[in-house]
Amino acid sequence: MVIQTTKQCACRWVLQHQHKLKQVARSCHLKVKEALGVDDIRDYDSEYSFKYTDLSTTLAEPSQLRMKPDVADLKFGHIFTDHMLKIFYHKALGGWQKPEIIPFENISLHPAAKVLHYAIELFEGMKAYRGVDGRIRVFRPDLNMQRMNLSAKGSGLPTFDGMELIKTINKLLTIDQEWVPHSEASSLYIRPTLIGIDGTLGVSQSESALLYTILCPVGAYFSGGNESVSLLADPSYTRAWPGGCGDRKMGSNYGPTIRVQKQATSQGKQQVLWLYGDDHQLTEVGTMNIFAFYVAENGKKVLATPPLNGLILPGVTRHSILQLAQEWNEFEVVERILTMQDVIKMQKENRLLELFGSGTACIVSPIHSVDYMGTEIPIPTMEHAKPVFRRILDRLTAIQYGHVEHPWAHIIDQE
Amino acid sequence: MVIQTTKQCACRWVLQHQHKLKQVARSCHLKVKEALGVDDIRDYDSEYSFKYTDLSTTLAEPSQLRMKPDVADLKFGHIFTDHMLKIFYHKALGGWQKPEIIPFENISLHPAAKVLHYAIELFEGMKAYRGVDGRIRVFRPDLNMQRMNLSAKGSGLPTFDGMELIKTINKLLTIDQEWVPHSEASSLYIRPTLIGIDGTLGVSQSESALLYTILCPVGAYFSGGNESVSLLADPSYTRAWPGGCGDRKMGSNYGPTIRVQKQATSQGKQQVLWLYGDDHQLTEVGTMNIFAFYVAENGKKVLATPPLNGLILPGVTRHSILQLAQEWNEFEVVERILTMQDVIKMQKENRLLELFGSGTACIVSPIHSVDYMGTEIPIPTMEHAKPVFRRILDRLTAIQYGHVEHPWAHIIDQE
Repeated sequence: MVIQTTKQCACRWVLQHQHKLKQVARSCHLKVKEALGVDDIRDYDSEYSFKYTDLSTTLAEPSQLRMKPDVADLKFGHIFTDHMLKIFYHKALGGWQKPEIIPFENISLHPAAKVLHYAIELFEGMKAYRGVDGRIRVFRPDLNMQRMNLSAKGSGLPTFDGMELIKTINKLLTIDQEWVPHSEASSLYIRPTLIGIDGTLGVSQSESALLYTILCPVGAYFSGGNESVSLLADPSYTRAWPGGCGDRKMGSNYGPTIRVQKQATSQGKQQVLWLYGDDHQLTEVGTMNIFAFYVAENGKKVLATPPLNGLILPGVTRHSILQLAQEWNEFEVVERILTMQDVIKMQKENRLLELFGSGTACIVSPIHSVDYMGTEIPIPTMEHAKPVFRRILDRLTAIQYGHVEHPWAHIIDQE
Repeated sequence: MVIQTTKQCACRWVLQHQHKLKQVARSCHLKVKEALGVDDIRDYDSEYSFKYTDLSTTLAEPSQLRMKPDVADLKFGHIFTDHMLKIFYHKALGGWQKPEIIPFENISLHPAAKVLHYAIELFEGMKAYRGVDGRIRVFRPDLNMQRMNLSAKGSGLPTFDGMELIKTINKLLTIDQEWVPHSEASSLYIRPTLIGIDGTLGVSQSESALLYTILCPVGAYFSGGNESVSLLADPSYTRAWPGGCGDRKMGSNYGPTIRVQKQATSQGKQQVLWLYGDDHQLTEVGTMNIFAFYVAENGKKVLATPPLNGLILPGVTRHSILQLAQEWNEFEVVERILTMQDVIKMQKENRLLELFGSGTACIVSPIHSVDYMGTEIPIPTMEHAKPVFRRILDRLTAIQYGHVEHPWAHIIDQE
């Protein structure tokens, strides 16, 4: 009878919590794929992807070529290269069309295009680096392709074979290779974008889409180790929610953050620390993942970041940092919920060592203070002789700029 | 001492709950404006709005004019009129530029335009009706302008004087007046849209914007009273949450719903019933507000809709239904939280009379069943001789098509 009762309880529990279990199952999708290895699982739905071998190329006329900027005064996202990649999808024409590389140009859209009304759109961010050997490396593009297909599924947009897009982007990089800065303080940012372009009003799946990629040379987000940031942590704003899309790189996650970022800026803070739930869990910082390095109550050092529970973007840099730190095997590396009370307690007890964001644009971004409920919490991230964030930065940039050979750096064929 | 303690408790309570109070305060903004009357409050931030008197008009050449469709087979959002309205905003050029009416054409956007990456976009939906007297009426456009400015603030986009946009849209309607169907089964849908067009990557406020308006003749979403819909209510998906933007008509509220709508369709349901919270509160249905008409436990009839608590779009039709029903004064009219348990209990006790959606596109949309946690709950909306939804529909269409004169119907000057 005892067993019977327990079984009934378990069944009831499962029934009562089935929607939460479903939420968790969905958000665990990427985690499972990570654990199994990326290449073992097909990210795209259909047999039909566009193919690199169908690529057509139209080079810019000499008169269309632009001046390359001085890398010293590069502003993020303001200057673009001479060419772009476009791939149309039209369901009525059998799906994906042939990829085209063309001179950089404006995009012409029907005023009713779904992207302009219903945010049927997603993007990726990756970088190409000019290595010390002169060769161009792209950092883990396979992970971006995997995530892009997850975002596409979340948006009802068509999926594709990520390897075909990597090959096509590599060709674009080869054509615009002189735009990859000859400097270790900068790189060429790659922005693959997928938008729904059906010229029909009504919230429904877009039967036409445009996948395009543009490139822009960017400076170092972070140089010299002194540019730490201050955060506004205001629990009255929420970035993502269970049952939403916070774990996909969809445009809809960004528009609503503008007004909150404005508020942070007006209070003299650089970034927003996004909290979630009644216990004020740390989730992300600005458009980055967040890491804490601290001494646990048992005296052991720990590097922690929030788990991929559906509220967190599965960052490529985040994933790489976890892998690196696990390989180092010098401190504990965990994915765990961190609340503001945890941060306050550790800070009071002098156990909080570092807090930093991670992302493709900045790699790592150290944090020196958090403004929470009217109180300024100082974070001693910049006060250590050999901080962990700096060690991570050094290791990742060594891989990216070819100081060490590493499988994460994909060398492109520049011929 | 007792007073002292109570005060301390109150202070602590306020401190502990200040973020929730802020959330409520923000979402009450529109409610307060509604209560005070729309015209008493300025919706826009700056002295500088575009002006109707600056409007320039370029008419389409005869060769550019399109065939008007047969109103009998109009599909929503597929056919557009001959002209459109465009108003650019460039901060660097002093803000709003002069409004232009031009032949309908594609929009040319920089590939890095913020709307395409970060969903910096919002829209409105209104309708122009051809009255029985041949005159064209627009339904409560002042409320749409008010909401559009709230959405703009939520997106970091520029605000404007709503009356100036109404006058400018009226001119567009006058030019394309023959597109307003001569039929009481159809109307001309008006889609004002505001997008961030800065050609720079990086999640930040757009310093350039485009406000445009397109028009499309549409058939009746709902005719004959027989087209009731079935709903999928799956608590594992969430449309909006506290501290988010669910109460603004921003594109970001729509993209993430596509995959859920797909799931509803694949299960043979027409629409999604959006739930929120552990108690599974009804919030919206598809892209509509939701109403329940029921017999309360005290035997009195009640018309109820969820309150504007930040999760609910402040619908113009919703607001009008509440006002109409209050004027009728024949049953109780309340804004209250309705949970799925409330629905199930009322349905079991034969007290639930009707469930229907409301919105500009359909006006009202009766619901005949809800699929919730694997159980089909039949709703007797269509089983009454004189349902409330039908009475509301008749009254609103009488106002819209000029069967009665009413201040909600703005007659436009067709000269």
